[in-house]
Amino acid sequence: MVTSSVVNTYPLSSYSFGTKEPKMEKDTSVADRLARMKLNYMKEGMRTSVEAILLVQEHNHPHILLLQIGNTFCKLPGGRLKPGENEVEGLKRKLSSKLAANSPNMQPNWQIGECVAVWWRPNFETIMYPYCPPHISKPKECKKLYVVHLSEREYFAVPKNLKLLAVPLFELYDNVQRYGPVISTIPQQLSRFQFNMIPA
Amino acid sequence: MVTSSVVNTYPLSSYSFGTKEPKMEKDTSVADRLARMKLNYMKEGMRTSVEAILLVQEHNHPHILLLQIGNTFCKLPGGRLKPGENEVEGLKRKLSSKLAANSPNMQPNWQIGECVAVWWRPNFETIMYPYCPPHISKPKECKKLYVVHLSEREYFAVPKNLKLLAVPLFELYDNVQRYGPVISTIPQQLSRFQFNMIPA
Repeated sequence: MVTSSVVNTYPLSSYSFGTKEPKMEKDTSVADRLARMKLNYMKEGMRTSVEAILLVQEHNHPHILLLQIGNTFCKLPGGRLKPGENEVEGLKRKLSSKLAANSPNMQPNWQIGECVAVWWRPNFETIMYPYCPPHISKPKECKKLYVVHLSEREYFAVPKNLKLLAVPLFELYDNVQRYGPVISTIPQQLSRFQFNMIPA
Repeated sequence: MVTSSVVNTYPLSSYSFGTKEPKMEKDTSVADRLARMKLNYMKEGMRTSVEAILLVQEHNHPHILLLQIGNTFCKLPGGRLKPGENEVEGLKRKLSSKLAANSPNMQPNWQIGECVAVWWRPNFETIMYPYCPPHISKPKECKKLYVVHLSEREYFAVPKNLKLLAVPLFELYDNVQRYGPVISTIPQQLSRFQFNMIPA
């Protein structure tokens, strides 16, 4: 793990992008998703998920890499840990599954940095909070967001059904309608970091 | 400085509160405030201000101490640094001026922790952003928020024109109308901390 409050951000043009087989969503509706969550909770207890904030720069302003599904919904790369799985190792596994070529020789150097946010899901519902609400003794999910430091050059393989977007912080800020409560407050969570913008 | 992601939070009832002479706002209107800011900028350059997040607990939920002016406006204790002043020392000075008794023997043990947020003011206007916006080469203010670790017992002297409130995180969250963009996103900025709730 890298714990530094300085984050080197390289130009988007430093990275190259290809495609790989689609990674379909496991559920086709929110209701299906919550039902599957409930079933898994009964088997394995609280779900822990980990997501990555991958940073690049354009015009000297930090941008975050988001996966877009269809034409609207955006999400951070990451996913659910296996029961007992280490968070850092699990996040690397999820990042490779979502963004790396299938060849073991072509895995990006995922340098997992600091945890910058933790969100809690008190019930089998879509709403999450940045704290475990009072009187909730058995939250259903804990989601942790990590800064991931990228190396200067990497190759990303993006599943064919998804688009990888570099979205500037100023687009995310105060834009809960478009990006939801978790992603739209990433600019505030990153504000304490110093970005070292590396020119092209 | 204390850099720990564990924050001991003691019950509000651990602390005692008295009053001291009023600390009046320097400006009576927003326009006056921005005009004074401009004048100071011409003399001293960018303003740096530091503010404290002081945490207590009630019913095992974290609460933040806010100073209320009149019946509506709330602010964090803190203020403007002198040119060249160290941030940690300056924050201690400001906290003592706002919240400590006048006797040097009765100063709380201000243990300044991590910087959790940085806000930028690009122009002589009220709006601030959690990043320096692109194309702004001379921001007018940089405001830094620090977690401050409180000891188990302290005495606070509150200026007579202000009220000190303990506001729960769940009240601040998603409440930009009441608390403004800086204070209302403190729950997100604190979400990565583990609160060690000390019983009464």
